[in-house]
Amino acid sequence: MGDEENIEITGEDEAWASVEAVGRRRVYRQGGTIDWMHEEAAERGRKHQVEHQRGVRSLLTPLLDSWRMWCVIIATGVGVGCIGAWLDVLVLWLADLRVGRCAYGFFYSRSTCCSGLDVAAGEVCNEWLTWSQSFNVTSTVGQILIQFLVYLIFAVLFASSAAILVQSYAPFAFHTGIPEIKAILGGYVLDDFLSPWTLLIKAVGLALAVASGLSLGKEGPLVHIAVCCASLASGFFAPFRNNEAQKRKILAAAAAAGVAVAFGSPLGGVLFGLEELDLFSNEQVMWRAFVTSVIAAVSLQYVDPFGTGKLVLFQVSTSQQPWRAFELIPWLGLGVAGGLLGALFIKINVAVALYRKRSMLREWPLIEVVGVTAITAVLSYMVAFMRVQTSELVSYLFQECDGSRDYRALCQPEAIWSTTFLLLCTLALKLALTAWTFGMKVPAGVFLPTIAAGACLGRAVGLLLQAWHKAHPTAWIFSSCPPEGNCISPGFYAVIGAAALLGGVTRMTVSLVAILFELTGALSHVLPIMISVMASKWVGDAINKEGIYTAWISLHGYSFLPNIEFRDDEGKGDHYIVPASQIITVNGRSSTLIELDTLLNCNNHDGFPVVDGDMLLGYVTRDRLREALDPLMQNSSEEELQSTRCTFLPRPSSDFVGPNLCNTMERAPMQLRQETPMDIIVPLFQKLNLRYVLFTAQGRLTGMMSKRDVVTLMNAGFKDAGALCDRAGAEHPDQGTRDVVWESEASGDVPLR
Amino acid sequence: MGDEENIEITGEDEAWASVEAVGRRRVYRQGGTIDWMHEEAAERGRKHQVEHQRGVRSLLTPLLDSWRMWCVIIATGVGVGCIGAWLDVLVLWLADLRVGRCAYGFFYSRSTCCSGLDVAAGEVCNEWLTWSQSFNVTSTVGQILIQFLVYLIFAVLFASSAAILVQSYAPFAFHTGIPEIKAILGGYVLDDFLSPWTLLIKAVGLALAVASGLSLGKEGPLVHIAVCCASLASGFFAPFRNNEAQKRKILAAAAAAGVAVAFGSPLGGVLFGLEELDLFSNEQVMWRAFVTSVIAAVSLQYVDPFGTGKLVLFQVSTSQQPWRAFELIPWLGLGVAGGLLGALFIKINVAVALYRKRSMLREWPLIEVVGVTAITAVLSYMVAFMRVQTSELVSYLFQECDGSRDYRALCQPEAIWSTTFLLLCTLALKLALTAWTFGMKVPAGVFLPTIAAGACLGRAVGLLLQAWHKAHPTAWIFSSCPPEGNCISPGFYAVIGAAALLGGVTRMTVSLVAILFELTGALSHVLPIMISVMASKWVGDAINKEGIYTAWISLHGYSFLPNIEFRDDEGKGDHYIVPASQIITVNGRSSTLIELDTLLNCNNHDGFPVVDGDMLLGYVTRDRLREALDPLMQNSSEEELQSTRCTFLPRPSSDFVGPNLCNTMERAPMQLRQETPMDIIVPLFQKLNLRYVLFTAQGRLTGMMSKRDVVTLMNAGFKDAGALCDRAGAEHPDQGTRDVVWESEASGDVPLR
Repeated sequence: MGDEENIEITGEDEAWASVEAVGRRRVYRQGGTIDWMHEEAAERGRKHQVEHQRGVRSLLTPLLDSWRMWCVIIATGVGVGCIGAWLDVLVLWLADLRVGRCAYGFFYSRSTCCSGLDVAAGEVCNEWLTWSQSFNVTSTVGQILIQFLVYLIFAVLFASSAAILVQSYAPFAFHTGIPEIKAILGGYVLDDFLSPWTLLIKAVGLALAVASGLSLGKEGPLVHIAVCCASLASGFFAPFRNNEAQKRKILAAAAAAGVAVAFGSPLGGVLFGLEELDLFSNEQVMWRAFVTSVIAAVSLQYVDPFGTGKLVLFQVSTSQQPWRAFELIPWLGLGVAGGLLGALFIKINVAVALYRKRSMLREWPLIEVVGVTAITAVLSYMVAFMRVQTSELVSYLFQECDGSRDYRALCQPEAIWSTTFLLLCTLALKLALTAWTFGMKVPAGVFLPTIAAGACLGRAVGLLLQAWHKAHPTAWIFSSCPPEGNCISPGFYAVIGAAALLGGVTRMTVSLVAILFELTGALSHVLPIMISVMASKWVGDAINKEGIYTAWISLHGYSFLPNIEFRDDEGKGDHYIVPASQIITVNGRSSTLIELDTLLNCNNHDGFPVVDGDMLLGYVTRDRLREALDPLMQNSSEEELQSTRCTFLPRPSSDFVGPNLCNTMERAPMQLRQETPMDIIVPLFQKLNLRYVLFTAQGRLTGMMSKRDVVTLMNAGFKDAGALCDRAGAEHPDQGTRDVVWESEASGDVPLR
Repeated sequence: MGDEENIEITGEDEAWASVEAVGRRRVYRQGGTIDWMHEEAAERGRKHQVEHQRGVRSLLTPLLDSWRMWCVIIATGVGVGCIGAWLDVLVLWLADLRVGRCAYGFFYSRSTCCSGLDVAAGEVCNEWLTWSQSFNVTSTVGQILIQFLVYLIFAVLFASSAAILVQSYAPFAFHTGIPEIKAILGGYVLDDFLSPWTLLIKAVGLALAVASGLSLGKEGPLVHIAVCCASLASGFFAPFRNNEAQKRKILAAAAAAGVAVAFGSPLGGVLFGLEELDLFSNEQVMWRAFVTSVIAAVSLQYVDPFGTGKLVLFQVSTSQQPWRAFELIPWLGLGVAGGLLGALFIKINVAVALYRKRSMLREWPLIEVVGVTAITAVLSYMVAFMRVQTSELVSYLFQECDGSRDYRALCQPEAIWSTTFLLLCTLALKLALTAWTFGMKVPAGVFLPTIAAGACLGRAVGLLLQAWHKAHPTAWIFSSCPPEGNCISPGFYAVIGAAALLGGVTRMTVSLVAILFELTGALSHVLPIMISVMASKWVGDAINKEGIYTAWISLHGYSFLPNIEFRDDEGKGDHYIVPASQIITVNGRSSTLIELDTLLNCNNHDGFPVVDGDMLLGYVTRDRLREALDPLMQNSSEEELQSTRCTFLPRPSSDFVGPNLCNTMERAPMQLRQETPMDIIVPLFQKLNLRYVLFTAQGRLTGMMSKRDVVTLMNAGFKDAGALCDRAGAEHPDQGTRDVVWESEASGDVPLR
């Protein structure tokens, strides 16, 4: 199926993109950005050929063509759903293993071991043995000690295995993956990030990391896993394997499915894709994302890892009582607090990342993981709320006190002060631990711990308010409350707190509210969630512009153009245009072979403007030029290399002898006048996925700007941009980037025009 | 608040857009398209000024500025919700009035009149008098006759009142409004469509039209009403009143709220906005749309017109039983049938619209409305399922047969053949009547009747399959069914049928499935809905490319660029580029005042390229040129007009005397080389909202293409494009459009270069 693609393109296209290579895969260098224009043109060419075949094939090939796409979509959806379910089971077993084991089978988790028993009704599960029971320890101190020791050992074991796996086999499997996915979907090339190895290591490592009790969630990594699945599935089909743009459209759909599985919310997944992954540009992608999400969610529900038939992580039992207007004040307060804490969290997380990079921790990631795991385990044993799995904690905090269940005195009015103190402790510890954990060499998501921390904050506020109401039921502020019974629902305050903090950390809006809407169900309760998310985003944005993912993209220095409005208030954008005098150009009238060869060897730019004098003729990419040069140079002696002259002029003068390279050149590159304001140029890059723009005046080349320059311009406010890159210039292959150009100039051996 | 805007713009912008007029409102002609670039530049300038004020104002003004926007959002949301609730009440009363009246108050609807009585439990409502009871008619024939007569009279009365209102006061209040909204959001100027008068007439007319029993729904018109609300609310604030682009962003949010209220589904509203109204481009718009939708839905729920607390039009009671794999075959069949019927519906509807335009019906819209209403009333009396309100019918059809309720033998197995026949009759009649009604001079939506027709089809298929199962429970196809009990849920087949037909008519995907998802709730049932919608869209797209809304946009000839992929397979796009020899240009080196004045008077283009010889200097819009000319001409004698020479050169030769108009010109218009393929040019227009593109080669003007040309190119496959326009060229004010240019050439008195 793969190699039947051998496509010719109509005449017009040739002028724009180098399309002779359409049938073959265009290879991009790791760290570069793909050429969207080229890839789209190639896809159009391919589709044209598919639809214009003769005979029976004209009917079958288009069907087959679209069937391939749906194959990938369905395979990805089912795969993500199954992996999600499998992860749940694995994590449950591993996490229970820290506490005890099943008497009749080592590989049973506690709930499987005790299945059939109604534990809530008081039935005792004798088949489940804690480690102290296993080892027949009877003294209380001994029991506590042995339990703690085994817990600690398993936690460290899990976390360090995850770190070793990641470090040895798939360095890209650490962290959440969402920043990289954003960059990749925007055209960044990072193939190792999508390899099957990474998929495997990320999945296993994630299960180990979550089970180790570290303060991390599995939502972000699930998105990474979903994207890897899609990459794997799309690798079987040539149209996706050979076209990076088409592949990215599939990856985008898969990313949405990852969120859908993580939260059991297919619409939330689609909206997350739209908002956070910038899939606004293509209607087809939206539909694919939706289909993938639904298939993934249905697969997860079908597998039903917990046998509950429930899809969502933590169902919220919203009390159906209405809320009162005065409650908007604490909710707004929670929003503001969430924004502040979120911004603080980002600052700490970035500081830790920089410290890790610059200190000796860089050399010893394993030590760091072991240390943090041990600290987390000790703290978990000391602070009651941190002992359970984070998702369990969240479900307790979201629960209303309806008398049926209670966890750790959450519902006991007499314990209000100690509970509040405990909640605030948990909040502080969770935030601190997560800020450190998020960035270590283990797969780690930031969603769930943030939700838990926010829920602690919200629940604490709710409890205090409830206590106030109980103490002074007739105070004027509570005048709208019913004379008896409850007025404040601390569980819903926890939801609000979670939304606010998550909003402050990720700066998401619509998708966040949609996910929480699907959790709570009640429409009238969406309004306060919305208000607090909005407040949180405003406060957060006032402190630092970037959400956590954008901050990490900047730290890594990925060439990613965020889809935000750019306003060149100070008019500084012009400094980012490289003037004509500093651009490395090709002399299009007449260049010797050796000159062209030197040009290619002495710098690593992706392409060069071709000029005649200072009149712009076109733009030639490195690959095309190299392709054209190689056969010419093989057949030439040293002397011929010096003397043979090539031209790029479409109609050279009749006495010119020598090869004409005019067909290697893109004859209609995007040109603007230099007077064009940056406010117009930046959206051009954002919306058209350009790699470069040439500036001309009356046909004369006056300047150039590359995507990398625009990224630098957009990152100008973030002082640590690129701090995690290993080599400063290594990832800047686009021509026009100032630092690279200066570098080349300094080396002195480049023919400047 | 309004006139404090007096903004200066930084130097760069001037080169791009004519921004001296930023502070004032730029007036666009009805039927033109707005200049997005200009409006965005103006907004950037305004924001810049707001944020760079001194003293206390620097803190307060930005807050005030964003507060204004939220004011509009909240007002719109609350307004739409309240209007939606008020409409429900009004329609209920009017519709009941056709059947009878309340004994103790004329203005009570039946349910209000009988409130407190449990009609289902057999209590008789004596306060509600049918007209035959009112008139004390006792004979059965007399009763039937009098009931029918009153019904007919009221129906005709309502419909004709609606038509008279529309025709006399607000001609734009007819039809659904969604095509116009799509065009307006895309930049089309149609101010009358958004006037308060239109709002009032549309709301009242809609209530009358729905109550008249005509085959129409209120969903589309509700979107129109929402947009009118937003236009009204935004008119109070200068930033929106003076900036068409900012206003459109508010209108887009309101449109989503309209759908949210119509279906009680805020997420569905947002997705509808994203998918059908092309709001992909702006993240802010998405958030605003979401907020507006939620506020509107909460308002509607708060007002609670029916006292049920339910938000959605027709709750679906999905039987929780799983579906079987063999059912995919009938569901796929329903999808295909929905696509076929949908495409057929569009064809008939377009044919009727053309017939109406070309026949004598054009002169007598009132007669048509009266006639169709009468026919509909008679048919409604004859076909049982059409007698109730369409929304009621749909809720019956979606209902499962759980023994509690039954309507017209829908659940009686012995009546299967007659019921199926009746359902298919209803389907045919509904489709035919809707195809005629949708386009008459009354407010009319196409959603609800389509849903009803589709539900009839689905229910019929479900009933037949159920009967087959009952007759042959052991057939191999039913092997996966449980040995006893039900296997087929005809109610869910009705949902599938509705989704399929709606998909075929509107060609929506994600938003349609999302709305039905919120109706049914069960995630596993989304999969079949998705499959049938997809099948329906494929089949429909294979027959005719346009959905019903796009078809109407084409019929009206609005300058709207659909956000679909354009592939120039036959390479015919080049024909739509106007060559330089046919462009009306301004001589930039030296033109007399009278030459420029003649240029402006002899054609209605929006702007002209300025050239020196054939070198392009820039682009000047009609408004700017007129503004600059007027003061010069007032102070000049006839002779001076002939002799005074103006120049557009930035640096004219030192011996040149006369006014320099170079600042009126946009010096950096978008330029491309003519070799650029159409596949690249069309997305440029789509994504950047351009109005024109100039083609140059080495600085020489070689051609031009306007947005209108691109629209014509995109509509090339639709043969009736612009058929409903009154004058062919009247709505083509953009320069470069071929027909207009030729027209001007024919007149002969235009200075061609």
